[in-house]
Amino acid sequence: MIQSASSNDAIRLQLRSWPEVETYLENCKGVIVPLGSTEQHGPTGAIGTDALTAEAVALEVGRRTGVLVTPAQAFGMAEHHLGFAGTVSLQPSTLLAVLHDVVLSLARHGFERIYVINGHGGNIATSKAAFAQAYATAADRGLAVAPRLRCKLANWFMAGPVMQEARSLYGAEEGHHATPSEIALTLHLEPSLQTKQRPLPDPAPAGPIHGPEDFRRRHPDGRMGSNPYLAQASHGERFLELAATALASDLEAFLT
Amino acid sequence: MIQSASSNDAIRLQLRSWPEVETYLENCKGVIVPLGSTEQHGPTGAIGTDALTAEAVALEVGRRTGVLVTPAQAFGMAEHHLGFAGTVSLQPSTLLAVLHDVVLSLARHGFERIYVINGHGGNIATSKAAFAQAYATAADRGLAVAPRLRCKLANWFMAGPVMQEARSLYGAEEGHHATPSEIALTLHLEPSLQTKQRPLPDPAPAGPIHGPEDFRRRHPDGRMGSNPYLAQASHGERFLELAATALASDLEAFLT
Amino acid sequence: MIQSASSNDAIRLQLRSWPEVETYLENCKGVIVPLGSTEQHGPTGAIGTDALTAEAVALEVGRRTGVLVTPAQAFGMAEHHLGFAGTVSLQPSTLLAVLHDVVLSLARHGFERIYVINGHGGNIATSKAAFAQAYATAADRGLAVAPRLRCKLANWFMAGPVMQEARSLYGAEEGHHATPSEIALTLHLEPSLQTKQRPLPDPAPAGPIHGPEDFRRRHPDGRMGSNPYLAQASHGERFLELAATALASDLEAFLT
Amino acid sequence: MIQSASSNDAIRLQLRSWPEVETYLENCKGVIVPLGSTEQHGPTGAIGTDALTAEAVALEVGRRTGVLVTPAQAFGMAEHHLGFAGTVSLQPSTLLAVLHDVVLSLARHGFERIYVINGHGGNIATSKAAFAQAYATAADRGLAVAPRLRCKLANWFMAGPVMQEARSLYGAEEGHHATPSEIALTLHLEPSLQTKQRPLPDPAPAGPIHGPEDFRRRHPDGRMGSNPYLAQASHGERFLELAATALASDLEAFLT
Amino acid sequence: MIQSASSNDAIRLQLRSWPEVETYLENCKGVIVPLGSTEQHGPTGAIGTDALTAEAVALEVGRRTGVLVTPAQAFGMAEHHLGFAGTVSLQPSTLLAVLHDVVLSLARHGFERIYVINGHGGNIATSKAAFAQAYATAADRGLAVAPRLRCKLANWFMAGPVMQEARSLYGAEEGHHATPSEIALTLHLEPSLQTKQRPLPDPAPAGPIHGPEDFRRRHPDGRMGSNPYLAQASHGERFLELAATALASDLEAFLT
Amino acid sequence: MIQSASSNDAIRLQLRSWPEVETYLENCKGVIVPLGSTEQHGPTGAIGTDALTAEAVALEVGRRTGVLVTPAQAFGMAEHHLGFAGTVSLQPSTLLAVLHDVVLSLARHGFERIYVINGHGGNIATSKAAFAQAYATAADRGLAVAPRLRCKLANWFMAGPVMQEARSLYGAEEGHHATPSEIALTLHLEPSLQTKQRPLPDPAPAGPIHGPEDFRRRHPDGRMGSNPYLAQASHGERFLELAATALASDLEAFLT
Repeated sequence: MIQSASSNDAIRLQLRSWPEVETYLENCKGVIVPLGSTEQHGPTGAIGTDALTAEAVALEVGRRTGVLVTPAQAFGMAEHHLGFAGTVSLQPSTLLAVLHDVVLSLARHGFERIYVINGHGGNIATSKAAFAQAYATAADRGLAVAPRLRCKLANWFMAGPVMQEARSLYGAEEGHHATPSEIALTLHLEPSLQTKQRPLPDPAPAGPIHGPEDFRRRHPDGRMGSNPYLAQASHGERFLELAATALASDLEAFLT
Repeated sequence: MIQSASSNDAIRLQLRSWPEVETYLENCKGVIVPLGSTEQHGPTGAIGTDALTAEAVALEVGRRTGVLVTPAQAFGMAEHHLGFAGTVSLQPSTLLAVLHDVVLSLARHGFERIYVINGHGGNIATSKAAFAQAYATAADRGLAVAPRLRCKLANWFMAGPVMQEARSLYGAEEGHHATPSEIALTLHLEPSLQTKQRPLPDPAPAGPIHGPEDFRRRHPDGRMGSNPYLAQASHGERFLELAATALASDLEAFLT
Repeated sequence: MIQSASSNDAIRLQLRSWPEVETYLENCKGVIVPLGSTEQHGPTGAIGTDALTAEAVALEVGRRTGVLVTPAQAFGMAEHHLGFAGTVSLQPSTLLAVLHDVVLSLARHGFERIYVINGHGGNIATSKAAFAQAYATAADRGLAVAPRLRCKLANWFMAGPVMQEARSLYGAEEGHHATPSEIALTLHLEPSLQTKQRPLPDPAPAGPIHGPEDFRRRHPDGRMGSNPYLAQASHGERFLELAATALASDLEAFLT
Repeated sequence: MIQSASSNDAIRLQLRSWPEVETYLENCKGVIVPLGSTEQHGPTGAIGTDALTAEAVALEVGRRTGVLVTPAQAFGMAEHHLGFAGTVSLQPSTLLAVLHDVVLSLARHGFERIYVINGHGGNIATSKAAFAQAYATAADRGLAVAPRLRCKLANWFMAGPVMQEARSLYGAEEGHHATPSEIALTLHLEPSLQTKQRPLPDPAPAGPIHGPEDFRRRHPDGRMGSNPYLAQASHGERFLELAATALASDLEAFLT
Repeated sequence: MIQSASSNDAIRLQLRSWPEVETYLENCKGVIVPLGSTEQHGPTGAIGTDALTAEAVALEVGRRTGVLVTPAQAFGMAEHHLGFAGTVSLQPSTLLAVLHDVVLSLARHGFERIYVINGHGGNIATSKAAFAQAYATAADRGLAVAPRLRCKLANWFMAGPVMQEARSLYGAEEGHHATPSEIALTLHLEPSLQTKQRPLPDPAPAGPIHGPEDFRRRHPDGRMGSNPYLAQASHGERFLELAATALASDLEAFLT
Repeated sequence: MIQSASSNDAIRLQLRSWPEVETYLENCKGVIVPLGSTEQHGPTGAIGTDALTAEAVALEVGRRTGVLVTPAQAFGMAEHHLGFAGTVSLQPSTLLAVLHDVVLSLARHGFERIYVINGHGGNIATSKAAFAQAYATAADRGLAVAPRLRCKLANWFMAGPVMQEARSLYGAEEGHHATPSEIALTLHLEPSLQTKQRPLPDPAPAGPIHGPEDFRRRHPDGRMGSNPYLAQASHGERFLELAATALASDLEAFLT
């Protein structure tokens, strides 16, 4: 992590005590939950890309807004990547239960705005399903905050300025998985990853996603139309800045 | 239903016998599953709007492509509408199980392309989660078709030509729920609904969707920024034509 | 559908708006839910037989009693028929969840009498299990109607007058699956099905139902002791009349 | 237990070793599973009535046929009796899972005929749903016995000779819950229960079963139209004989 | 069962009526639930060992303390023994649901202290998980006893005096499965089991427990380091005495 | 994190690419999964204590053994701490599903030894239940590694040398939750936490753990008999050394 730890410490839920959280709730009902995935990112990308990036963006958004950040849920829904070694996936029904329980735990304490910063497209559908299930349970249990409970999914890689910058830097070579933009952010966060970078042959084109066998057959090295060799750590720093700016603004609107 | 029954009969799975399906599978591995919802559609819209429209589009796409159409799943994920009488909702985990079982049943027979024509935005996330779960189960069970199994969600109301026409006809008054475009299609399909049409006050603006209490407080009459009074049956006929044309083309690409 | 649409429109929940349902609930707490199945019905019968018939009976019962009819749940528990192409089955645990959620949705709005008109023997056990689960959840959630909530399963094909008529018309050739009585009703509802009718060899005898492989081995063409060739559309009209009369009377007793 | 222990020991699975079971399976693929419930049986009946009777009948059937008897599942589906102290109920979905797992365990060892002797009407629906789910799983897992696996539910209290005898002895006072026939069998099995017997006021009439609050309101002392004071231990001995004879014969047919 | 039935009758929930349980609850909020397993116990041990012993200890503890004893849950979590014929196992998720439902049923009636006397090490983890789940549900449902509800797992074979006696009698030959101590108790309870006793070859050593294939490969006759031939019925009587004394004392502390 | 990042990078699964994992599996079938919890740790302890410590120990064990370390699962089973703000808990059934899916994902790639380094006592039961469920599923799906798949739970805080050192440093003031030993490790890992340290009144004594209301009533400030003010960062460094040494040795034995 490049950001000074001290600046982030104040907003990491993990480093707070329960009385501090109680005090926090008197002034703010919002909380950030980073959601990643642990899955192949092409022949040169890090398996942890989606969790590393989601957590970094979340901490930066937290630092800027003063909103608490929970630890990251690093395992996400990556069934279609299971054909590649190292991928760890929760079934959709499992991830649904995880996010449901996380939201319900937070709602019980009085949190009313759950802002999930997500680093993986494959989590989007299940996360939204989980929010709907959580609202229903909150109401069924008669939680005090039920009528005010709101969850929002913020996919940092889909923020407008991030996508514009990626298009400007990489054009069509941004692709759809193991993209240079996300790889760039990991190079910024974890400089040791630079050693993996090397030119790669043309990728298989992106396409719809089905099961793991189908995915591997159509994307033999795991990439979907992307050229991650274009990624540079300095780009990553810029993506972090753009994403944090966009999401911090979005979060502030969400809280009011 | 305005279309002549006879033209549709040939592609309704419900009207086929099992040997006919066996024969069908020799030539085509595709099938259409209409997915709707049973939920409030504003003070003047029909509760069955999403299922009626999804089924009508599905039958018309089936008629044009010769692809079999299963019966509609008329109950969908409508938790946020449960604050309005008459809404029937499956929890996300339940709808996930339903679509999972439907896909697995079809895959067992050798269907390889499951094309779900959907009439309700609230179903999208859960449907996609269900597809991922179904691919995994198909592989875990070692189904013969597992490597070739593909599901696709086609939301008729989001087809490009449909959205363009709606924008052209209604501008911002299209809104996001109980929209004039979907109401128009129901007027075309079920002329008796015309009697409910009446001018309505300005709607509450659209916004993000959370729990049922929140939804009703922010959208007291159930509409999200829409003016369904603009809907006309003739528009509906046009929407059906546009949706069927777009989705038939999309389905044909999906099958090849 | 032979019945004039207009006569049925008034009692189809799908064609009501939510304020109309609110008004309806001031006078009646009952609702009809048609439950079918999508499964093989022998070499000449329609796969949709159970849903088509359940919905037709439900609409006729609704028309006579003025009780609202929800859309049909067309997918039921048909695991034992999965050896025949075209069958779509929900696992028992899935159908249990579906009916649970449907009952809970309706109970939330104040419906106190849920009358499920069922067209498939294979649904009976799971439906009753679902009712028990729904009562428990209604109580656990503290729903206002919980103490008054009652569900009833009405199998139209087991109504006394229906069974007598079938015995009178077909004797032992009525059999237990793909029966001439249910096929007759489909011929009445969907005249195009007449073209499938043809003499069939003697059927395999009926017997207990186990798994799909066992079922297909013992009932190679899907029939259980039945001769559907005896079915005539005019019989079907009569069965509809008998079923609707019996169930309308039963429903009225249930409502009081 | 009145029957001499020694005569039963040989067929109690609990008293066998695993090599003995392996040997047994060379000659017989059948097994008996007693299924009871733990629920109120009126002001004078034993809470364990359904499990005590199911197990006694099962052991007697086992003794006569030489078919192994597993231990009883004494907790069943008794949600509607939860308004009375001492009732212990599994939710339908839980009992479904229990019976599913029991059947799958037995099938894995090569048992092909699972004969469930049941003492409680409330278990019937869920048991049948569980069998369907178990067949499906057996097939999905590719178990060797899947095509031959058969489960059967035998409700001892509904055996023809048992019902005739009950009608002959008690007429309409047999009722539908806490019946003199089942109470008589418990008096035979557990003589200490005799001390609870006393005349009772006229019972509430039997009726359909819904949730626990509804049940208690309509059946304030737990009985459904029955007069258990008519029960005598000698009747119970007779019911055991009748039930065992009928079910032993039924089981033998099931095994061949 | 060696203990006179009459002495046990008074504390068997199965032999109580619901008004008796209501009266009991005025003075005592405790209840004992025996939990066993149905699984292989080596070449000479009884498959029912864990349920037989747990129930015997439970009844003796009940007799001494006057605390009610429910029927035994004889099927437990024995997945790792499924490689041996006759083993019947509930999946962990199923046993979790069973114990959850049992606790919730009892809590609903006002029981506040649920004391589970367990005979099988494989049940321990799942039982504790189930307790946590049950506390949460009790709170979510707003049960009156939720704040006072406590469950405790008492493994009779791990009681201090029992383990000391086993060590004293058998030393290292006590082993970890199919132990002489538990076999001795079954010899005391079911004298017919004596005929199975015979010298056995040295057992495979105990080790960690994984899946069923792994277990059978490493423990080919099912024993884990034990010599059950050392077991004698008189030892068993002593173990029962020691276990009952220890657990009765523990239960009394739990109740106050 | 005090350890130099570079030394850990090599064994973080998150920083590997999928081809690197494929290569790794040629030589080693082991993997470490850190499991924590996000829960109150007394008035001065960090909510993230269990995840921070488990991950730190895991990375150090990985560094010493060369075994890959997955990202931490930071949300665990903490239902009993939900009465304190900031606690995030997965229900036991949810955590069971998470660990099941993680193990199955890893097993699919050929990992045969899953070593879970755990920082929270409340996870133990559910983790063991999850392992049993995972073995069963691996076998049911016919995974190639199923017969060789082994999971092991290693609780760093229960390693012999760690407990001895804690006893030596703190005696009875070690307590059972928010212990000085775990707090010391967090002080070593996250120096900013030092500012929270302050003398505390005598803690409530440790006792059995039940539901959240019961827990808070009996442990009003969240501590169970512990005096975390005794903790020092230098102790923490020592605990990390002791835990890593003990677990590295244990892991190496597990792998062979």
